[in-house]
Amino acid sequence: MSGRTPVPSRADFGHFMTIPTRFSDNDMLGHLNNVAYHRFFEVIVVDFFTEKAGIDLFNDPIVTFAAETMCRFRSPLSFPDIVDGAMCVEHLGTSSVRYGLALFRKGEDEAAADGHWVHVFVDRKTQKPVPIPARFRAAFEAIQV
Amino acid sequence: MSGRTPVPSRADFGHFMTIPTRFSDNDMLGHLNNVAYHRFFEVIVVDFFTEKAGIDLFNDPIVTFAAETMCRFRSPLSFPDIVDGAMCVEHLGTSSVRYGLALFRKGEDEAAADGHWVHVFVDRKTQKPVPIPARFRAAFEAIQV
Amino acid sequence: MSGRTPVPSRADFGHFMTIPTRFSDNDMLGHLNNVAYHRFFEVIVVDFFTEKAGIDLFNDPIVTFAAETMCRFRSPLSFPDIVDGAMCVEHLGTSSVRYGLALFRKGEDEAAADGHWVHVFVDRKTQKPVPIPARFRAAFEAIQV
Amino acid sequence: MSGRTPVPSRADFGHFMTIPTRFSDNDMLGHLNNVAYHRFFEVIVVDFFTEKAGIDLFNDPIVTFAAETMCRFRSPLSFPDIVDGAMCVEHLGTSSVRYGLALFRKGEDEAAADGHWVHVFVDRKTQKPVPIPARFRAAFEAIQV
Repeated sequence: MSGRTPVPSRADFGHFMTIPTRFSDNDMLGHLNNVAYHRFFEVIVVDFFTEKAGIDLFNDPIVTFAAETMCRFRSPLSFPDIVDGAMCVEHLGTSSVRYGLALFRKGEDEAAADGHWVHVFVDRKTQKPVPIPARFRAAFEAIQV
Repeated sequence: MSGRTPVPSRADFGHFMTIPTRFSDNDMLGHLNNVAYHRFFEVIVVDFFTEKAGIDLFNDPIVTFAAETMCRFRSPLSFPDIVDGAMCVEHLGTSSVRYGLALFRKGEDEAAADGHWVHVFVDRKTQKPVPIPARFRAAFEAIQV
Repeated sequence: MSGRTPVPSRADFGHFMTIPTRFSDNDMLGHLNNVAYHRFFEVIVVDFFTEKAGIDLFNDPIVTFAAETMCRFRSPLSFPDIVDGAMCVEHLGTSSVRYGLALFRKGEDEAAADGHWVHVFVDRKTQKPVPIPARFRAAFEAIQV
Repeated sequence: MSGRTPVPSRADFGHFMTIPTRFSDNDMLGHLNNVAYHRFFEVIVVDFFTEKAGIDLFNDPIVTFAAETMCRFRSPLSFPDIVDGAMCVEHLGTSSVRYGLALFRKGEDEAAADGHWVHVFVDRKTQKPVPIPARFRAAFEAIQV
Protein backbone atom coordinates (compact mmCIF):
# COMPACT_ATOMS: atom_id res chain seq x y z
CA MET A 1 0.00 0.00 0.00
CA SER A 2 2.96 2.32 -0.56
CA GLY A 3 2.25 5.53 -2.36
CA ARG A 4 -1.02 6.24 -0.56
CA THR A 5 -2.08 9.80 -0.08
CA PRO A 6 -1.48 11.48 3.30
CA VAL A 7 -4.20 10.93 5.89
CA PRO A 8 -6.42 14.03 6.05
CA SER A 9 -7.22 15.74 9.34
CA ARG A 10 -10.23 17.74 10.46
CA ALA A 11 -8.60 21.03 9.44
CA ASP A 12 -8.85 19.97 5.80
CA PHE A 13 -12.64 20.21 5.76
CA GLY A 14 -15.27 22.94 6.06
CA HIS A 15 -18.55 21.09 6.68
CA PHE A 16 -19.15 18.64 9.50
CA MET A 17 -22.02 16.53 10.77
CA THR A 18 -22.54 13.61 13.15
CA ILE A 19 -23.69 10.22 11.89
CA PRO A 20 -24.87 7.57 14.37
CA THR A 21 -24.03 4.11 13.03
CA ARG A 22 -26.74 1.46 12.85
CA PHE A 23 -26.33 -2.22 13.74
CA SER A 24 -27.06 -3.07 10.11
CA ASP A 25 -24.11 -0.97 8.88
CA ASN A 26 -21.80 -3.72 10.18
CA ASP A 27 -21.28 -6.84 8.14
CA MET A 28 -20.43 -10.37 9.17
CA LEU A 29 -16.82 -9.43 9.83
CA GLY A 30 -17.94 -7.17 12.70
CA HIS A 31 -16.97 -3.83 11.14
CA LEU A 32 -18.80 -1.30 9.01
CA ASN A 33 -19.30 -2.88 5.62
CA ASN A 34 -17.20 -1.02 3.07
CA VAL A 35 -20.29 -0.06 1.09
CA ALA A 36 -21.64 1.69 4.20
CA TYR A 37 -18.82 4.24 3.95
CA HIS A 38 -20.22 5.41 0.62
CA ARG A 39 -23.67 5.48 2.24
CA PHE A 40 -22.21 7.78 4.91
CA PHE A 41 -20.61 9.98 2.25
CA GLU A 42 -24.09 10.34 0.75
CA VAL A 43 -25.48 11.32 4.15
CA ILE A 44 -22.84 14.07 4.40
CA VAL A 45 -23.38 15.44 0.88
CA VAL A 46 -27.16 15.47 1.26
CA ASP A 47 -26.82 17.18 4.64
CA PHE A 48 -24.64 19.87 3.05
CA PHE A 49 -27.16 20.29 0.23
CA THR A 50 -30.01 20.74 2.66
CA GLU A 51 -28.36 22.72 5.44
CA LYS A 52 -25.90 24.92 3.54
CA ALA A 53 -26.72 25.00 -0.17
CA GLY A 54 -30.52 25.06 -0.09
CA ILE A 55 -30.73 22.28 -2.68
CA ASP A 56 -34.15 20.57 -2.64
CA LEU A 57 -33.57 17.08 -4.04
CA PHE A 58 -37.31 16.49 -4.24
CA ASN A 59 -38.43 19.55 -6.17
CA ASP A 60 -35.53 21.48 -7.69
CA PRO A 61 -35.45 21.47 -11.52
CA ILE A 62 -31.79 20.53 -11.24
CA VAL A 63 -30.58 17.23 -9.85
CA THR A 64 -27.17 15.64 -9.34
CA PHE A 65 -25.74 12.55 -11.00
CA ALA A 66 -22.66 10.86 -9.59
CA ALA A 67 -19.75 10.66 -12.04
CA GLU A 68 -17.21 9.05 -9.75
CA THR A 69 -17.07 7.92 -6.12
CA MET A 70 -13.98 6.76 -4.26
CA CYS A 71 -13.15 5.76 -0.68
CA ARG A 72 -9.87 4.86 1.03
CA PHE A 73 -10.16 2.80 4.21
CA ARG A 74 -7.51 3.58 6.80
CA SER A 75 -8.76 2.24 10.13
CA PRO A 76 -11.96 0.24 10.62
CA LEU A 77 -15.11 1.84 12.01
CA SER A 78 -17.78 -0.30 13.65
CA PHE A 79 -21.25 0.03 15.10
CA PRO A 80 -21.85 1.43 17.73
CA ASP A 81 -19.27 4.12 16.84
CA ILE A 82 -20.60 7.63 16.39
CA VAL A 83 -18.90 9.07 13.34
CA ASP A 84 -18.07 12.65 12.40
CA GLY A 85 -18.58 13.19 8.68
CA ALA A 86 -16.57 15.93 6.95
CA MET A 87 -16.74 17.54 3.52
CA CYS A 88 -14.88 20.09 1.43
CA VAL A 89 -14.93 21.11 -2.24
CA GLU A 90 -11.77 20.07 -4.07
CA HIS A 91 -12.74 21.31 -7.54
CA LEU A 92 -15.61 23.47 -8.73
CA GLY A 93 -16.26 23.26 -12.48
CA THR A 94 -19.00 24.70 -14.67
CA SER A 95 -21.47 21.88 -14.19
CA SER A 96 -19.53 19.48 -12.00
CA VAL A 97 -18.07 19.58 -8.52
CA ARG A 98 -15.63 17.30 -6.74
CA TYR A 99 -16.13 16.90 -2.99
CA GLY A 100 -13.48 15.71 -0.56
CA LEU A 101 -15.12 13.49 2.07
CA ALA A 102 -13.92 11.90 5.27
CA LEU A 103 -15.10 10.00 8.34
CA PHE A 104 -13.56 10.58 11.75
CA ARG A 105 -13.89 8.60 14.94
CA LYS A 106 -15.04 10.83 17.85
CA GLY A 107 -12.09 12.60 19.39
CA GLU A 108 -9.61 11.59 16.69
CA ASP A 109 -7.98 13.99 14.26
CA GLU A 110 -6.83 11.52 11.62
CA ALA A 111 -9.50 10.33 9.20
CA ALA A 112 -10.58 6.69 9.52
CA ALA A 113 -11.61 6.88 5.87
CA ASP A 114 -11.51 9.49 3.14
CA GLY A 115 -12.28 9.84 -0.52
CA HIS A 116 -14.12 11.95 -3.07
CA TRP A 117 -17.34 12.12 -5.01
CA VAL A 118 -17.83 13.93 -8.31
CA HIS A 119 -21.33 15.22 -8.97
CA VAL A 120 -22.62 16.54 -12.29
CA PHE A 121 -25.60 18.88 -12.18
CA VAL A 122 -28.23 17.94 -14.75
CA ASP A 123 -31.65 19.14 -15.75
CA ARG A 124 -34.25 16.90 -14.06
CA LYS A 125 -36.22 16.45 -17.29
CA THR A 126 -33.60 16.31 -20.04
CA GLN A 127 -30.97 14.76 -17.77
CA LYS A 128 -28.34 16.86 -19.62
CA PRO A 129 -25.59 18.76 -17.76
CA VAL A 130 -26.38 22.37 -16.87
CA PRO A 131 -24.27 25.11 -15.25
CA ILE A 132 -24.34 25.00 -11.46
CA PRO A 133 -26.73 27.80 -10.34
CA ALA A 134 -25.07 30.80 -8.63
CA ARG A 135 -26.77 30.18 -5.27
CA PHE A 136 -25.31 26.66 -5.12
CA ARG A 137 -21.86 27.86 -6.31
CA ALA A 138 -21.65 30.26 -3.39
CA ALA A 139 -22.24 27.44 -0.92
CA PHE A 140 -19.62 25.27 -2.60
CA GLU A 141 -17.09 28.13 -2.67
CA ALA A 142 -17.53 28.60 1.07
CA ILE A 143 -15.98 25.17 1.71
CA GLN A 144 -13.57 25.11 -1.24
CA VAL A 145 -9.94 24.25 -0.40
CA MET B 1 -15.17 15.23 -17.36
CA SER B 2 -12.25 15.30 -19.79
CA GLY B 3 -9.39 12.96 -19.07
CA ARG B 4 -11.62 10.05 -18.17
CA THR B 5 -10.35 6.57 -18.79
CA PRO B 6 -11.60 4.66 -21.84
CA VAL B 7 -14.87 2.78 -21.36
CA PRO B 8 -14.10 -0.92 -20.77
CA SER B 9 -15.81 -3.64 -22.77
CA ARG B 10 -16.66 -7.24 -21.89
CA ALA B 11 -13.42 -8.53 -23.41
CA ASP B 12 -11.49 -6.77 -20.63
CA PHE B 13 -12.84 -9.12 -17.93
CA GLY B 14 -12.54 -12.79 -17.05
CA HIS B 15 -15.34 -13.44 -14.53
CA PHE B 16 -19.01 -12.70 -15.16
CA MET B 17 -22.27 -13.11 -13.29
CA THR B 18 -25.84 -11.86 -13.55
CA ILE B 19 -27.34 -9.54 -10.94
CA PRO B 20 -31.10 -8.91 -10.88
CA THR B 21 -31.77 -5.39 -9.64
CA ARG B 22 -34.24 -4.85 -6.79
CA PHE B 23 -36.82 -2.05 -6.57
CA SER B 24 -35.00 -0.76 -3.52
CA ASP B 25 -31.74 -0.32 -5.46
CA ASN B 26 -33.30 2.72 -7.13
CA ASP B 27 -33.41 6.02 -5.31
CA MET B 28 -35.83 8.91 -5.54
CA LEU B 29 -34.32 10.05 -8.83
CA GLY B 30 -35.54 6.83 -10.49
CA HIS B 31 -32.12 5.29 -11.19
CA LEU B 32 -29.89 2.92 -9.27
CA ASN B 33 -28.56 4.83 -6.29
CA ASN B 34 -24.84 5.37 -6.74
CA VAL B 35 -24.10 3.44 -3.55
CA ALA B 36 -25.88 0.41 -5.05
CA TYR B 37 -23.11 0.15 -7.66
CA HIS B 38 -20.61 -0.57 -4.90
CA ARG B 39 -23.10 -3.09 -3.47
CA PHE B 40 -23.13 -4.78 -6.87
CA PHE B 41 -19.32 -4.77 -6.98
CA GLU B 42 -19.44 -6.60 -3.65
CA VAL B 43 -21.87 -9.15 -5.09
CA ILE B 44 -19.42 -9.82 -7.94
CA VAL B 45 -16.33 -10.14 -5.73
CA VAL B 46 -18.09 -12.45 -3.26
CA ASP B 47 -19.41 -14.55 -6.16
CA PHE B 48 -15.86 -14.89 -7.50
CA PHE B 49 -14.61 -15.83 -4.03
CA THR B 50 -17.23 -18.54 -3.66
CA GLU B 51 -17.44 -19.92 -7.18
CA LYS B 52 -13.84 -19.64 -8.39
CA ALA B 53 -11.45 -19.11 -5.49
CA GLY B 54 -12.98 -21.33 -2.82
CA ILE B 55 -12.78 -18.56 -0.23
CA ASP B 56 -15.14 -19.20 2.70
CA LEU B 57 -15.90 -15.80 4.20
CA PHE B 58 -17.58 -17.41 7.20
CA ASN B 59 -14.89 -19.83 8.31
CA ASP B 60 -11.53 -19.22 6.60
CA PRO B 61 -8.76 -18.07 8.98
CA ILE B 62 -8.05 -15.32 6.46
CA VAL B 63 -10.46 -12.50 5.68
CA THR B 64 -10.38 -9.48 3.37
CA PHE B 65 -10.38 -5.81 4.31
CA ALA B 66 -11.12 -3.17 1.70
CA ALA B 67 -8.33 -0.65 1.22
CA GLU B 68 -9.88 1.38 -1.59
CA THR B 69 -13.08 1.27 -3.65
CA MET B 70 -13.85 3.37 -6.71
CA CYS B 71 -16.65 3.58 -9.27
CA ARG B 72 -17.08 5.63 -12.44
CA PHE B 73 -20.66 6.12 -13.62
CA ARG B 74 -21.01 6.28 -17.40
CA SER B 75 -24.66 5.58 -18.21
CA PRO B 76 -27.44 5.17 -15.63
CA LEU B 77 -28.78 1.73 -14.72
CA SER B 78 -32.25 1.38 -13.21
CA PHE B 79 -34.48 -1.26 -11.73
CA PRO B 80 -35.81 -3.47 -13.38
CA ASP B 81 -32.60 -3.80 -15.45
CA ILE B 82 -30.82 -7.12 -15.23
CA VAL B 83 -27.13 -6.36 -14.95
CA ASP B 84 -24.08 -8.36 -16.00
CA GLY B 85 -21.31 -7.97 -13.45
CA ALA B 86 -17.70 -8.42 -14.60
CA MET B 87 -14.38 -8.75 -12.78
CA CYS B 88 -10.69 -9.05 -13.55
CA VAL B 89 -7.49 -8.77 -11.51
CA GLU B 90 -5.49 -5.65 -12.32
CA HIS B 91 -2.71 -6.12 -9.79
CA LEU B 92 -1.74 -9.07 -7.60
CA GLY B 93 0.59 -8.18 -4.73
CA THR B 94 1.88 -10.20 -1.80
CA SER B 95 -1.04 -9.58 0.51
CA SER B 96 -3.25 -7.28 -1.55
CA VAL B 97 -5.09 -7.54 -4.83
CA ARG B 98 -6.72 -4.94 -7.04
CA TYR B 99 -9.83 -6.02 -8.94
CA GLY B 100 -11.20 -4.30 -12.01
CA LEU B 101 -15.00 -4.29 -11.84
CA ALA B 102 -17.73 -3.32 -14.26
CA LEU B 103 -21.49 -3.46 -14.78
CA PHE B 104 -23.00 -4.01 -18.22
CA ARG B 105 -26.54 -3.63 -19.42
CA LYS B 106 -27.81 -6.84 -21.08
CA GLY B 107 -26.76 -6.95 -24.72
CA GLU B 108 -24.39 -3.97 -24.48
CA ASP B 109 -20.63 -4.19 -24.82
CA GLU B 110 -19.68 -0.85 -23.24
CA ALA B 111 -19.69 -0.75 -19.46
CA ALA B 112 -22.43 1.33 -17.82
CA ALA B 113 -20.10 1.66 -14.82
CA ASP B 114 -16.62 0.51 -13.93
CA GLY B 115 -14.09 0.88 -11.18
CA HIS B 116 -11.81 -1.02 -8.88
CA TRP B 117 -11.59 -2.45 -5.39
CA VAL B 118 -8.38 -3.13 -3.48
CA HIS B 119 -8.55 -5.94 -0.93
CA VAL B 120 -5.94 -6.72 1.70
CA PHE B 121 -5.86 -10.25 3.10
CA VAL B 122 -5.59 -10.28 6.88
CA ASP B 123 -5.55 -12.88 9.61
CA ARG B 124 -9.07 -13.14 11.07
CA LYS B 125 -7.79 -12.96 14.65
CA THR B 126 -4.83 -10.57 14.55
CA GLN B 127 -6.32 -8.52 11.68
CA LYS B 128 -2.76 -8.08 10.36
CA PRO B 129 -1.90 -8.52 6.64
CA VAL B 130 -0.78 -12.00 5.59
CA PRO B 131 0.44 -13.36 2.24
CA ILE B 132 -2.37 -14.43 -0.07
CA PRO B 133 -2.51 -18.27 0.11
CA ALA B 134 -1.38 -20.12 -3.02
CA ARG B 135 -4.83 -21.59 -3.74
CA PHE B 136 -6.37 -18.10 -3.87
CA ARG B 137 -3.47 -16.72 -5.96
CA ALA B 138 -4.12 -19.31 -8.64
CA ALA B 139 -7.75 -18.20 -8.94
CA PHE B 140 -6.72 -14.54 -9.14
CA GLU B 141 -4.04 -15.27 -11.76
CA ALA B 142 -6.64 -16.97 -13.92
CA ILE B 143 -8.43 -13.65 -14.44
CA GLN B 144 -5.39 -11.37 -14.29
CA VAL B 145 -5.04 -8.89 -17.17
CA MET C 1 -44.42 -19.89 20.49
CA SER C 2 -47.52 -22.05 20.84
CA GLY C 3 -50.54 -21.05 18.85
CA ARG C 4 -48.59 -20.27 15.71
CA THR C 5 -50.32 -20.65 12.38
CA PRO C 6 -49.66 -23.75 10.25
CA VAL C 7 -46.60 -23.56 8.00
CA PRO C 8 -47.73 -22.79 4.45
CA SER C 9 -46.58 -24.89 1.50
CA ARG C 10 -46.04 -24.01 -2.15
CA ALA C 11 -49.57 -25.10 -3.09
CA ASP C 12 -50.95 -22.17 -1.09
CA PHE C 13 -49.56 -19.57 -3.51
CA GLY C 14 -50.15 -18.54 -7.12
CA HIS C 15 -47.17 -16.35 -8.03
CA PHE C 16 -43.54 -17.42 -7.74
CA MET C 17 -40.16 -15.91 -8.49
CA THR C 18 -36.53 -16.64 -7.67
CA ILE C 19 -34.48 -14.28 -5.49
CA PRO C 20 -30.68 -14.68 -5.30
CA THR C 21 -29.48 -13.63 -1.86
CA ARG C 22 -26.65 -11.10 -1.56
CA PHE C 23 -23.76 -11.26 0.92
CA SER C 24 -25.06 -8.06 2.47
CA ASP C 25 -28.46 -9.63 3.25
CA ASN C 26 -26.75 -11.57 6.06
CA ASP C 27 -26.05 -9.88 9.35
CA MET C 28 -23.36 -10.47 11.94
CA LEU C 29 -25.12 -13.60 13.19
CA GLY C 30 -24.48 -15.29 9.83
CA HIS C 31 -28.10 -15.53 8.68
CA LEU C 32 -30.35 -13.30 6.62
CA ASN C 33 -31.09 -10.25 8.73
CA ASN C 34 -34.75 -10.29 9.68
CA VAL C 35 -35.34 -6.98 7.91
CA ALA C 36 -34.10 -8.57 4.67
CA TYR C 37 -37.16 -10.85 4.67
CA HIS C 38 -39.38 -7.80 4.29
CA ARG C 39 -37.04 -6.58 1.55
CA PHE C 40 -37.61 -9.90 -0.21
CA PHE C 41 -41.38 -9.59 0.24
CA GLU C 42 -41.09 -6.23 -1.54
CA VAL C 43 -39.14 -7.85 -4.36
CA ILE C 44 -41.97 -10.39 -4.81
CA VAL C 45 -44.79 -7.84 -4.72
CA VAL C 46 -43.02 -5.52 -7.17
CA ASP C 47 -42.31 -8.48 -9.47
CA PHE C 48 -46.00 -9.38 -9.43
CA PHE C 49 -46.94 -5.78 -10.15
CA THR C 50 -44.60 -5.61 -13.13
CA GLU C 51 -44.98 -9.09 -14.59
CA LYS C 52 -48.64 -9.90 -13.93
CA ALA C 53 -50.59 -6.75 -13.05
CA GLY C 54 -49.01 -4.20 -15.40
CA ILE C 55 -48.58 -1.69 -12.57
CA ASP C 56 -45.98 0.95 -13.43
CA LEU C 57 -44.69 2.26 -10.11
CA PHE C 58 -42.83 5.08 -11.85
CA ASN C 59 -45.63 6.58 -13.92
CA ASP C 60 -49.07 5.25 -12.97
CA PRO C 61 -51.38 7.88 -11.45
CA ILE C 62 -52.10 5.39 -8.68
CA VAL C 63 -49.49 4.24 -6.17
CA THR C 64 -49.52 1.87 -3.22
CA PHE C 65 -48.98 2.68 0.45
CA ALA C 66 -48.25 -0.08 2.94
CA ALA C 67 -50.79 -0.31 5.77
CA GLU C 68 -49.36 -3.34 7.54
CA THR C 69 -46.47 -5.74 7.03
CA MET C 70 -45.81 -8.93 8.98
CA CYS C 71 -43.35 -11.79 8.80
CA ARG C 72 -43.05 -15.07 10.74
CA PHE C 73 -39.61 -16.66 10.78
CA ARG C 74 -39.69 -20.47 10.82
CA SER C 75 -36.26 -21.67 9.72
CA PRO C 76 -33.25 -19.42 9.02
CA LEU C 77 -32.23 -18.56 5.46
CA SER C 78 -28.66 -17.44 4.75
CA PHE C 79 -26.58 -16.13 1.88
CA PRO C 80 -25.70 -17.86 -0.49
CA ASP C 81 -29.15 -19.55 -0.49
CA ILE C 82 -31.27 -19.02 -3.56
CA VAL C 83 -34.80 -18.35 -2.39
CA ASP C 84 -38.15 -18.98 -4.04
CA GLY C 85 -40.55 -16.14 -3.29
CA ALA C 86 -44.28 -16.84 -3.32
CA MET C 87 -47.38 -14.65 -3.22
CA CYS C 88 -51.16 -14.99 -3.10
CA VAL C 89 -54.04 -12.60 -2.43
CA GLU C 90 -55.75 -13.27 0.90
CA HIS C 91 -58.27 -10.43 0.78
CA LEU C 92 -59.28 -8.05 -1.99
CA GLY C 93 -61.11 -4.95 -0.79
CA THR C 94 -62.28 -1.83 -2.60
CA SER C 95 -59.04 0.10 -2.29
CA SER C 96 -56.88 -2.28 -0.29
CA VAL C 97 -55.48 -5.73 -0.81
CA ARG C 98 -53.84 -8.19 1.55
CA TYR C 99 -51.13 -10.40 0.09
CA GLY C 100 -49.95 -13.66 1.57
CA LEU C 101 -46.18 -13.93 1.14
CA ALA C 102 -43.65 -16.67 1.74
CA LEU C 103 -40.03 -17.62 1.17
CA PHE C 104 -39.00 -21.20 0.38
CA ARG C 105 -35.60 -22.82 0.33
CA LYS C 106 -34.89 -24.49 -3.03
CA GLY C 107 -36.38 -27.98 -3.09
CA GLU C 108 -38.35 -27.56 0.15
CA ASP C 109 -42.12 -27.45 0.36
CA GLU C 110 -42.49 -25.88 3.81
CA ALA C 111 -42.03 -22.13 3.97
CA ALA C 112 -38.90 -20.88 5.76
CA ALA C 113 -40.81 -17.65 6.41
CA ASP C 114 -44.28 -16.35 5.69
CA GLY C 115 -46.38 -13.33 6.40
CA HIS C 116 -48.60 -10.72 4.81
CA TRP C 117 -48.56 -7.19 3.48
CA VAL C 118 -51.58 -4.90 3.21
CA HIS C 119 -51.42 -2.31 0.44
CA VAL C 120 -53.78 0.63 0.02
CA PHE C 121 -54.10 2.12 -3.45
CA VAL C 122 -53.90 5.92 -3.38
CA ASP C 123 -53.91 8.73 -5.90
CA ARG C 124 -50.29 9.76 -6.55
CA LYS C 125 -51.11 13.47 -6.16
CA THR C 126 -53.74 13.63 -3.44
CA GLN C 127 -52.41 10.54 -1.62
CA LYS C 128 -56.03 9.63 -0.83
CA PRO C 129 -57.35 6.05 -1.21
CA VAL C 130 -58.98 5.25 -4.56
CA PRO C 131 -60.75 2.11 -5.83
CA ILE C 132 -58.37 -0.48 -7.26
CA PRO C 133 -58.63 -0.19 -11.08
CA ALA C 134 -60.33 -3.12 -12.86
CA ARG C 135 -57.21 -4.19 -14.72
CA PHE C 136 -55.29 -4.60 -11.44
CA ARG C 137 -58.24 -6.37 -9.77
CA ALA C 138 -58.22 -9.03 -12.46
CA ALA C 139 -54.55 -9.78 -11.78
CA PHE C 140 -55.18 -9.98 -8.03
CA GLU C 141 -58.22 -12.24 -8.49
CA ALA C 142 -56.09 -14.64 -10.53
CA ILE C 143 -54.01 -15.46 -7.44
CA GLN C 144 -56.74 -15.04 -4.81
CA VAL C 145 -57.14 -17.92 -2.37
CA MET D 1 -58.96 -0.57 7.31
CA SER D 2 -61.70 -0.85 9.94
CA GLY D 3 -60.91 -2.89 12.97
CA ARG D 4 -57.42 -1.45 13.38
CA THR D 5 -55.95 -1.19 16.81
CA PRO D 6 -55.93 2.18 18.63
CA VAL D 7 -53.01 4.46 17.82
CA PRO D 8 -50.44 4.25 20.63
CA SER D 9 -49.08 7.37 22.29
CA ARG D 10 -45.75 8.09 23.95
CA ALA D 11 -47.10 7.17 27.39
CA ASP D 12 -47.41 3.55 26.25
CA PHE D 13 -43.63 3.08 26.04
CA GLY D 14 -40.70 2.98 28.45
CA HIS D 15 -37.60 3.28 26.25
CA PHE D 16 -36.96 6.09 23.79
CA MET D 17 -34.20 7.09 21.40
CA THR D 18 -33.76 9.47 18.48
CA ILE D 19 -33.16 8.20 14.94
CA PRO D 20 -32.00 10.60 12.22
CA THR D 21 -33.39 9.48 8.87
CA ARG D 22 -31.04 9.06 5.91
CA PHE D 23 -31.75 10.10 2.32
CA SER D 24 -31.55 6.44 1.34
CA ASP D 25 -34.37 5.50 3.75
CA ASN D 26 -36.81 7.14 1.31
CA ASP D 27 -37.92 5.27 -1.78
CA MET D 28 -39.05 6.50 -5.16
CA LEU D 29 -42.43 7.54 -3.77
CA GLY D 30 -40.72 10.19 -1.62
CA HIS D 31 -41.47 8.64 1.78
CA LEU D 32 -39.63 6.24 4.03
CA ASN D 33 -39.70 2.88 2.34
CA ASN D 34 -41.87 0.54 4.39
CA VAL D 35 -38.95 -1.82 4.96
CA ALA D 36 -37.04 1.06 6.59
CA TYR D 37 -39.58 1.05 9.44
CA HIS D 38 -38.44 -2.44 10.39
CA ARG D 39 -34.84 -1.24 10.09
CA PHE D 40 -35.71 1.51 12.58
CA PHE D 41 -37.36 -1.02 14.90
CA GLU D 42 -34.06 -2.91 14.83
CA VAL D 43 -32.17 0.28 15.71
CA ILE D 44 -34.43 0.74 18.75
CA VAL D 45 -34.16 -2.86 19.98
CA VAL D 46 -30.37 -2.92 19.59
CA ASP D 47 -30.13 0.43 21.39
CA PHE D 48 -32.16 -0.99 24.27
CA PHE D 49 -29.96 -4.10 24.33
CA THR D 50 -26.80 -2.02 24.50
CA GLU D 51 -27.90 0.86 26.72
CA LYS D 52 -30.29 -0.80 29.15
CA ALA D 53 -29.90 -4.59 29.07
CA GLY D 54 -26.15 -4.94 28.69
CA ILE D 55 -26.56 -7.46 25.86
CA ASP D 56 -23.38 -7.76 23.78
CA LEU D 57 -24.49 -8.98 20.37
CA PHE D 58 -20.90 -9.58 19.34
CA ASN D 59 -19.69 -11.73 22.22
CA ASP D 60 -22.50 -12.97 24.45
CA PRO D 61 -23.02 -16.75 24.40
CA ILE D 62 -26.72 -16.04 23.87
CA VAL D 63 -28.13 -14.41 20.75
CA THR D 64 -31.60 -13.47 19.57
CA PHE D 65 -33.56 -14.86 16.64
CA ALA D 66 -36.63 -13.05 15.35
CA ALA D 67 -39.78 -15.14 15.44
CA GLU D 68 -42.23 -12.52 14.17
CA THR D 69 -42.06 -8.86 13.13
CA MET D 70 -45.01 -6.61 12.35
CA CYS D 71 -45.54 -2.96 11.53
CA ARG D 72 -48.68 -0.85 11.05
CA PHE D 73 -48.25 2.34 9.02
CA ARG D 74 -50.46 5.18 10.16
CA SER D 75 -49.00 8.39 8.74
CA PRO D 76 -46.01 8.59 6.37
CA LEU D 77 -42.55 9.55 7.65
CA SER D 78 -39.98 10.94 5.21
CA PHE D 79 -36.35 11.96 5.16
CA PRO D 80 -35.28 14.47 6.53
CA ASP D 81 -37.62 13.81 9.49
CA ILE D 82 -35.97 13.09 12.81
CA VAL D 83 -37.84 10.23 14.40
CA ASP D 84 -38.36 9.27 18.04
CA GLY D 85 -38.24 5.51 18.44
CA ALA D 86 -40.11 3.92 21.36
CA MET D 87 -40.16 0.45 22.87
CA CYS D 88 -41.95 -1.49 25.60
CA VAL D 89 -42.23 -5.17 26.54
CA GLU D 90 -45.68 -6.60 25.85
CA HIS D 91 -44.98 -10.17 26.89
CA LEU D 92 -42.06 -11.76 28.69
CA GLY D 93 -41.89 -15.55 28.35
CA THR D 94 -39.26 -18.09 29.43
CA SER D 95 -37.09 -17.80 26.35
CA SER D 96 -39.02 -15.34 24.21
CA VAL D 97 -40.05 -11.72 24.56
CA ARG D 98 -42.50 -9.60 22.60
CA TYR D 99 -41.61 -5.92 22.22
CA GLY D 100 -44.07 -3.18 21.38
CA LEU D 101 -42.40 -0.69 19.03
CA ALA D 102 -43.39 2.69 17.65
CA LEU D 103 -42.06 5.65 15.67
CA PHE D 104 -43.12 9.21 16.48
CA ARG D 105 -42.65 12.39 14.53
CA LYS D 106 -40.92 15.08 16.66
CA GLY D 107 -43.47 16.90 18.78
CA GLU D 108 -46.33 14.52 18.02
CA ASP D 109 -47.94 12.22 20.56
CA GLU D 110 -49.67 9.81 18.19
CA ALA D 111 -47.44 7.14 16.66
CA ALA D 112 -46.76 7.44 12.93
CA ALA D 113 -46.15 3.70 12.94
CA ASP D 114 -46.28 0.92 15.49
CA GLY D 115 -45.90 -2.81 15.69
CA HIS D 116 -44.17 -5.61 17.50
CA TRP D 117 -41.18 -7.92 17.29
CA VAL D 118 -40.91 -11.31 18.97
CA HIS D 119 -37.37 -12.41 19.84
CA VAL D 120 -36.33 -15.89 20.96
CA PHE D 121 -33.12 -16.20 22.94
CA VAL D 122 -30.93 -19.02 21.66
CA ASP D 123 -27.53 -20.44 22.45
CA ARG D 124 -25.02 -19.00 19.97
CA LYS D 125 -23.51 -22.42 19.22
CA THR D 126 -26.44 -24.85 19.35
CA GLN D 127 -28.94 -22.24 18.14
CA LYS D 128 -31.51 -23.84 20.49
CA PRO D 129 -33.80 -21.73 22.73
CA VAL D 130 -32.52 -21.06 26.22
CA PRO D 131 -34.10 -19.29 29.22
CA ILE D 132 -33.60 -15.53 29.19
CA PRO D 133 -30.79 -14.78 31.69
CA ALA D 134 -31.86 -12.99 34.87
CA ARG D 135 -29.87 -9.83 34.14
CA PHE D 136 -31.70 -9.39 30.81
CA ARG D 137 -35.10 -10.21 32.37
CA ALA D 138 -34.68 -7.35 34.84
CA ALA D 139 -34.14 -4.88 32.00
CA PHE D 140 -37.17 -6.17 30.12
CA GLU D 141 -39.34 -6.04 33.26
CA ALA D 142 -38.41 -2.40 33.73
CA ILE D 143 -40.26 -1.47 30.51
CA GLN D 144 -42.99 -4.12 30.69
CA VAL D 145 -46.56 -2.85 30.27
